Amino acid sequence: MTVKEFFLKLKAKVLDIEAKKLVCILNEKDAKDLGIIALERIQIVNQKNKKSIHAVVDTTQSIVKNGELGLFKDVAKALKAKNGTILNAGAQARPKSISYIKAKLDRKKLSEQQIKEIVQDISTNRLSDVETTAFVTSVYTNGFDLKETVAMTKALAQSGQKISFTTSKKVVDKHSVGGTNGRTTLVIVPIIASSGLLIPKTSSRTITSASGTADAMEVLAPVNLSIWQIKKITQKIGGAIAWGGAVDLAPVDDKIIKIEHPLSLDPHGQVIASVMAKKFSAGAKYVLIDLPVGPEMKVKTLKQAKIMSKKFAAVGKELGIKVKTVTTKANSPSGKAFGPALEAKYALEVLEGKFFDNFAEKCIKLSGELLELAGAQKRGKGYNAALQMLESGMALQKMRQIIKAQGGRTFSSSQIKSAPFKKTFFAQKNGKIKQIHVRKCTSIARASGAPTDKKAGLFLKVENSGTVIKGQPIFEIYAQNQQKLLVAAAIAKQLNPIEIK
Amino acid sequence: MTVKEFFLKLKAKVLDIEAKKLVCILNEKDAKDLGIIALERIQIVNQKNKKSIHAVVDTTQSIVKNGELGLFKDVAKALKAKNGTILNAGAQARPKSISYIKAKLDRKKLSEQQIKEIVQDISTNRLSDVETTAFVTSVYTNGFDLKETVAMTKALAQSGQKISFTTSKKVVDKHSVGGTNGRTTLVIVPIIASSGLLIPKTSSRTITSASGTADAMEVLAPVNLSIWQIKKITQKIGGAIAWGGAVDLAPVDDKIIKIEHPLSLDPHGQVIASVMAKKFSAGAKYVLIDLPVGPEMKVKTLKQAKIMSKKFAAVGKELGIKVKTVTTKANSPSGKAFGPALEAKYALEVLEGKFFDNFAEKCIKLSGELLELAGAQKRGKGYNAALQMLESGMALQKMRQIIKAQGGRTFSSSQIKSAPFKKTFFAQKNGKIKQIHVRKCTSIARASGAPTDKKAGLFLKVENSGTVIKGQPIFEIYAQNQQKLLVAAAIAKQLNPIEIK
Repeated sequence: MTVKEFFLKLKAKVLDIEAKKLVCILNEKDAKDLGIIALERIQIVNQKNKKSIHAVVDTTQSIVKNGELGLFKDVAKALKAKNGTILNAGAQARPKSISYIKAKLDRKKLSEQQIKEIVQDISTNRLSDVETTAFVTSVYTNGFDLKETVAMTKALAQSGQKISFTTSKKVVDKHSVGGTNGRTTLVIVPIIASSGLLIPKTSSRTITSASGTADAMEVLAPVNLSIWQIKKITQKIGGAIAWGGAVDLAPVDDKIIKIEHPLSLDPHGQVIASVMAKKFSAGAKYVLIDLPVGPEMKVKTLKQAKIMSKKFAAVGKELGIKVKTVTTKANSPSGKAFGPALEAKYALEVLEGKFFDNFAEKCIKLSGELLELAGAQKRGKGYNAALQMLESGMALQKMRQIIKAQGGRTFSSSQIKSAPFKKTFFAQKNGKIKQIHVRKCTSIARASGAPTDKKAGLFLKVENSGTVIKGQPIFEIYAQNQQKLLVAAAIAKQLNPIEIK
Repeated sequence: MTVKEFFLKLKAKVLDIEAKKLVCILNEKDAKDLGIIALERIQIVNQKNKKSIHAVVDTTQSIVKNGELGLFKDVAKALKAKNGTILNAGAQARPKSISYIKAKLDRKKLSEQQIKEIVQDISTNRLSDVETTAFVTSVYTNGFDLKETVAMTKALAQSGQKISFTTSKKVVDKHSVGGTNGRTTLVIVPIIASSGLLIPKTSSRTITSASGTADAMEVLAPVNLSIWQIKKITQKIGGAIAWGGAVDLAPVDDKIIKIEHPLSLDPHGQVIASVMAKKFSAGAKYVLIDLPVGPEMKVKTLKQAKIMSKKFAAVGKELGIKVKTVTTKANSPSGKAFGPALEAKYALEVLEGKFFDNFAEKCIKLSGELLELAGAQKRGKGYNAALQMLESGMALQKMRQIIKAQGGRTFSSSQIKSAPFKKTFFAQKNGKIKQIHVRKCTSIARASGAPTDKKAGLFLKVENSGTVIKGQPIFEIYAQNQQKLLVAAAIAKQLNPIEIK
């Protein structure tokens, strides 16, 4: 008698519920036969196509009859099962990876093999949300050393697909370890793509800020591209800006991000593995890392930045990627916009040549560094070459090609509208702007609905170190409804994001 | 315009799904109107009885129509809602307690107020499983100091009800910080109850071992008693043995245990708060803590035990409870049984006077200490008094009264049956028993199905330091079906729980 014979044969009943996780519903009698209770997991195999997944079990007395297995939408999709599809379901043993997670909580080092198993078990859903959360928090609080970070990077990269370019052109990429506003990617990618390099950029949705690059790009064009589409568009016009979560590059990383999101966690060790795994999978050979440093950034001190730079370089070396880290002081906002639509509009205005501020300056500087890193420009020549791409309008033209290629129709900043409910805040006295607090602006923008409400957010009407007179508008909040506006305005009053002296 | 006006009015549709957590299902259109996405939380208020809960949202296009709110069974129960009940649903702001959890992950100390808020938010379901897990792991890995432990204890106690006894008799309690087998409570409670003290014992189901006391007692009698029943039975016959999770004493503690369970976590700081909160709520004034110390126990070293003893005493002092800690070396199993039915039978056999081994000795010792702590016996006289209760049969008679009062019918060890599938292991050579590994025995018992399958488990046929001859039975495994037996036997072969030299 083999273990396989203990699988129960059940008929699929597809339930129209989007749980965003793999859940199935068993009749209580069948659950008892399998010897499992609610919240435990089972393995389900589609008898026909042999697709197999692990799912969490809920039990019922009536919604699903004896002999049936209720599948939430995502489960049915994963199994390619329809109503009546014959499935085999069996109880699942406790994964060994749980003990590795516990070891990390006990501040122990994990081996390459242990990290690989954890990532595989997250990938195949053998680890539940509770267990995956324990892993994420253990790495957050107890850290990964270099060896563990390299192992995590490899494991994440192996969990998904890889883009292989059939071209002699150099493939490059950039990443900002966020914490600030301003979507430099929307300016840098068209500049780089205009320079003969390939930049298949996959970006994340935000965890802690008012907008991620994918959130902002989505205002201009669809970002849910397949690997095949990213490759095709990049080879044709030099660049693409896609949502990393939609493609199967390091998919476990996206599961981890989903856990980090409600907790606003962003463990340093995990960030490096997460970024480098995606760059590796996207086929990049030259990667520029932008590390904004400041008391309100993810990276607080130059010392921390130095440690991260070293780790980025070391992980890159292991993966055959040349990495350069640019550390920039970030004590003030990067541009004036907070929120997906506002930030997309802002970046487009820079490409349109409407103004050139500290945000535009940063984009040109980073583009120049990347051009030099990949050898497309000699040392010291990158900045001017990048500036030339922007001023000539070539970058704007390239961005419009990218937007069109991705299926978008928003080619001009004037097409982008903000949310309908607006409140303006005014200076309470004459004076000088002493400090604009990025994190406070971010909190207000998030309270207004960003990034879920794309058109919501905060827009500054003043700059750091500028002077204001009493009654002058200093910032605006945009929201989709009156409730969100009220909440955001109340928080703004409490936080007072702009200090006037 | 107040925030309340943004609640949507929806009709309840009760779904026959037991999710063991508070989940509701919204039509996608209504979800959009409320501005929320799947896995976010809403507040639901029953318009009629004003009952209010927080629940996690799943979305659907068809199972629940526009204007309806699908309620999982537990949600409907909590709201006392039926099909058609009018409910108000509103989006829920991000709880502030999440930032306190993050602070603990960052190794910061939490204030009494912050801990109170976290516990309240777990209690009202404002914190999700992911967030509660982050809290549990943060306490596990970064610890609670004395002040935090006291705050946690108070917050847990305040989260539930309290038993107030109307009697002049002294109320006592005991707790073993487990990790070992053998249910001393089933022997100690009847001895104490025979001595004129009151012992309203609430016990937990197991997290990491083969059986908790509640799991074992349930073999003899129902343990899902109400506070009212515990009080009544204890006042009438001196003692009761109930499942703590069924009564509303420190209910948040039970939510935390549910998270710890799949991870096999049991943070020391959390254990103290958890235990003392329940003793406080049960009205105990004298509490004996049994701390088994050994390399395979929860408490590994005498130094750790000393620190825990101090914390137990300090927390007790804050709550007006006299605490005594008994530290016992535990390098071998406590009795021979692993698993609810096997351990219940074993304890009953001790009460029946069938044998007197190291387990019985431990029960008498702890009973004696408790009698002395509460002043029911003079110093040095407790042990003999307890032994007398056992040998006279008074304790057995008392246990039968307790079983009967709780609605049980299993009064004799001979009534308890083991699971039907059995495998016996034999000594591979002649020799002396060098070591019986408690944790290995536990792992095998759990693989056989314990504690979920009550009749499953492991039973030793030999004792530590005894001699064996080749072919002699050394232990037996019991399981409910052939699959579990095969798995447990395979694990037993691998682990080799009994070392012969």
